[in-house]
Amino acid sequence: MNIPRTSFPRIVIIGGGFAGVALAKKLSKQEVQVVLLDKNNYHTFQPLLYQVSTGGLEPDSIAYPIRKILKDFPNFHFRLANVEEINTVENKVLTDIGELKFDYLVIASGAETNYFGNSEIEKHSMAMKTIPESLNLRSLILENFEEALLTSDLNERNSLMNFVIVGGGPTGVELAGALAEIKKGILPKDYPDLDTRLAQIHIIQSSDCILKGMSDKASEKAEDFLEKLGVNVWKNVRVTNYDGKTVTTNTDLTFETATLVWAAGVKGAAIKGMDAGEFVTKGERLLVNEFNQVKGFNHVFAIGDIACMATEEFPNGLPMMAQPAIQQGKQLGENMVRLIEEKPMQPFIYKDKGAMATIGRNKAVVDLPKFKFQGVFAWYVWMFVHLFFLIGFRNRMVVFINWVYNYIRFDREARLIIRPFKKKLKS
Amino acid sequence: MNIPRTSFPRIVIIGGGFAGVALAKKLSKQEVQVVLLDKNNYHTFQPLLYQVSTGGLEPDSIAYPIRKILKDFPNFHFRLANVEEINTVENKVLTDIGELKFDYLVIASGAETNYFGNSEIEKHSMAMKTIPESLNLRSLILENFEEALLTSDLNERNSLMNFVIVGGGPTGVELAGALAEIKKGILPKDYPDLDTRLAQIHIIQSSDCILKGMSDKASEKAEDFLEKLGVNVWKNVRVTNYDGKTVTTNTDLTFETATLVWAAGVKGAAIKGMDAGEFVTKGERLLVNEFNQVKGFNHVFAIGDIACMATEEFPNGLPMMAQPAIQQGKQLGENMVRLIEEKPMQPFIYKDKGAMATIGRNKAVVDLPKFKFQGVFAWYVWMFVHLFFLIGFRNRMVVFINWVYNYIRFDREARLIIRPFKKKLKS
Repeated sequence: MNIPRTSFPRIVIIGGGFAGVALAKKLSKQEVQVVLLDKNNYHTFQPLLYQVSTGGLEPDSIAYPIRKILKDFPNFHFRLANVEEINTVENKVLTDIGELKFDYLVIASGAETNYFGNSEIEKHSMAMKTIPESLNLRSLILENFEEALLTSDLNERNSLMNFVIVGGGPTGVELAGALAEIKKGILPKDYPDLDTRLAQIHIIQSSDCILKGMSDKASEKAEDFLEKLGVNVWKNVRVTNYDGKTVTTNTDLTFETATLVWAAGVKGAAIKGMDAGEFVTKGERLLVNEFNQVKGFNHVFAIGDIACMATEEFPNGLPMMAQPAIQQGKQLGENMVRLIEEKPMQPFIYKDKGAMATIGRNKAVVDLPKFKFQGVFAWYVWMFVHLFFLIGFRNRMVVFINWVYNYIRFDREARLIIRPFKKKLKS
Repeated sequence: MNIPRTSFPRIVIIGGGFAGVALAKKLSKQEVQVVLLDKNNYHTFQPLLYQVSTGGLEPDSIAYPIRKILKDFPNFHFRLANVEEINTVENKVLTDIGELKFDYLVIASGAETNYFGNSEIEKHSMAMKTIPESLNLRSLILENFEEALLTSDLNERNSLMNFVIVGGGPTGVELAGALAEIKKGILPKDYPDLDTRLAQIHIIQSSDCILKGMSDKASEKAEDFLEKLGVNVWKNVRVTNYDGKTVTTNTDLTFETATLVWAAGVKGAAIKGMDAGEFVTKGERLLVNEFNQVKGFNHVFAIGDIACMATEEFPNGLPMMAQPAIQQGKQLGENMVRLIEEKPMQPFIYKDKGAMATIGRNKAVVDLPKFKFQGVFAWYVWMFVHLFFLIGFRNRMVVFINWVYNYIRFDREARLIIRPFKKKLKS
């Protein structure tokens, strides 16, 4: 990679998610050369992916060009690259567009879907961690309904109209709620020839409550909201397999569905060369100390979902959410300057700002450190916070317009199959 | 296809473009059964595709779900289907989802890119007739700039930054203008490591003027606008080949480019079974009489781009634009009712509402039947008319917000490579 060396130390950041972008911004005016590598040329606002899948938002309005975020920063370079290997002996990364030497490396590669080794589920299920995946799910949902119109086999038709979501975390809960609203408000109008009341939405959670990381009240209320929307919530049920038709579980329960969304787990997106060793946890995250240094390294850092920082409150590592990522990115930016100036670094202290999830129209749950509330007001807070954290004025405006429109009209207009998913599978 | 017969005559419409949708709307309250077939589940607002290609608009905001346009109409059925053959002996269409009988057939399949038999150009060039094609072009433009950063070969770098557009019609002119604005306003900020002044935009027209269907004044002014924006306009030059690297022409001129956009011609999107015979023109359009009946048929009609209706003013058929399509769709809706009621049909009379094209910020040309004007006011008129004809309040709002934002900020934020184009080619 032909990036000229300067007299400044070179910091290579892998990943332009919340953590990587927060770090790069902090370093913008420092005497360092920053190279950010990402396999996409855009930053993804992951919390709203489920709205892309369900036709409520355009993909373009929850993505933001990385070059634009960092365009006014001197000594900053972005390269569209897939990092294939990290070599900490020679201090270089190997990518699909060549090698790059570093003085300091920051791994902010995020998380990926965890299938816990079940390749059949991986093959047949849909994930929702990236924009293309979310668009594939959007296409599949719509293609299934078009196909349901064509079959006279009742079992097949029901299977095409059923949705099984595995995992009762925020992703699963938000998706289930959105699907339930589509079922109620849009499908009967779009498909008058189908009895869309037969469409079933199931959410399956292996433990005894949904939204496990949140308060009991939030979890109970979310379940209540889902049930009001007609979603079937199955707790203490673990999915054991899915062959593309039937979901089997560790109980007698089985589900017939053409669409299984796997939101049951994530793991660190570890990179070859740093994917084995005493610093790798069971969930493929990288153990870091309070300065985000990967265990055993001085010049290799990890931040965000890939980093596993144990604290008193979170002995298994901070939650894999936007807030720890943003906070770690900012703090590491300050610490790297201190490190280069040979000053002592400051330990990271996580400020828990709470958690929230939306289930549907006027239905959300919010846990703030001092307040917990549910319902209409929580829903407004959820929207406000998400608009606030979206990058870019245009994106905020477009998302806002869409939300107002969807709210007033009980509609979601982006139900478009721009790139068919099933056809691609066949060809 | 399991669509139950009713006592009403069945009208099958192939294509949900301007013509097909206008016709379906007209038939909404009549005593007919309407089946609309389209290979997409959305209507595309083609005049704004070039803005999707150049990152100014989201694809979702120029597309509209066909089911939603027609959701309140009784006796209306939509099927997502690719029509593979028309059988006028047995009065049925054959599609990828089964056969369908018709009493009346309306072909509104539109136009497709015409490579005039040159398969090498077809293989290596980009077209811009559909949303996926426009997104591919968007991805390619951005991928080329990312690649230009990586090469140290000056010729290759220039080739990656050059754009050759073949065809000086509205599509070519509008795309060239948009690219010129990106080159000026965005590339230098996004790619400070590249000398983007070296990027060249060429537009090649085989005849002696661009915007041939418009007034001389419009054509001259458009050329003037393009040159002010730094676009190289080549007239009386015909492209003879493109091997993926070099564009050759009927003159000594050659161009080195990694991106050739082919906007040099369209032809009717004829369908097997109706693609040969005395009713097919050289441009693969279907000859129709003043009632839009295909020559030799009473119950088979063609409207929009696929229909070739000769008039005194347009002996080679009406122009392939939105207005004739919309007007024919509406009129045919009325005529079909008359036909079924055994009343005489009314001949179609084309109301020429003029033509317009935008070249850039404050730069457009408008030919109205009684007025011709160019510049800032024309640009406002262009925007107003395009917003007006967009379907759906949400789409209008989102497009409007994007335009205001792009205007104020000299920006186009949707420069996102959601699905890489080159990577797909390689795999």
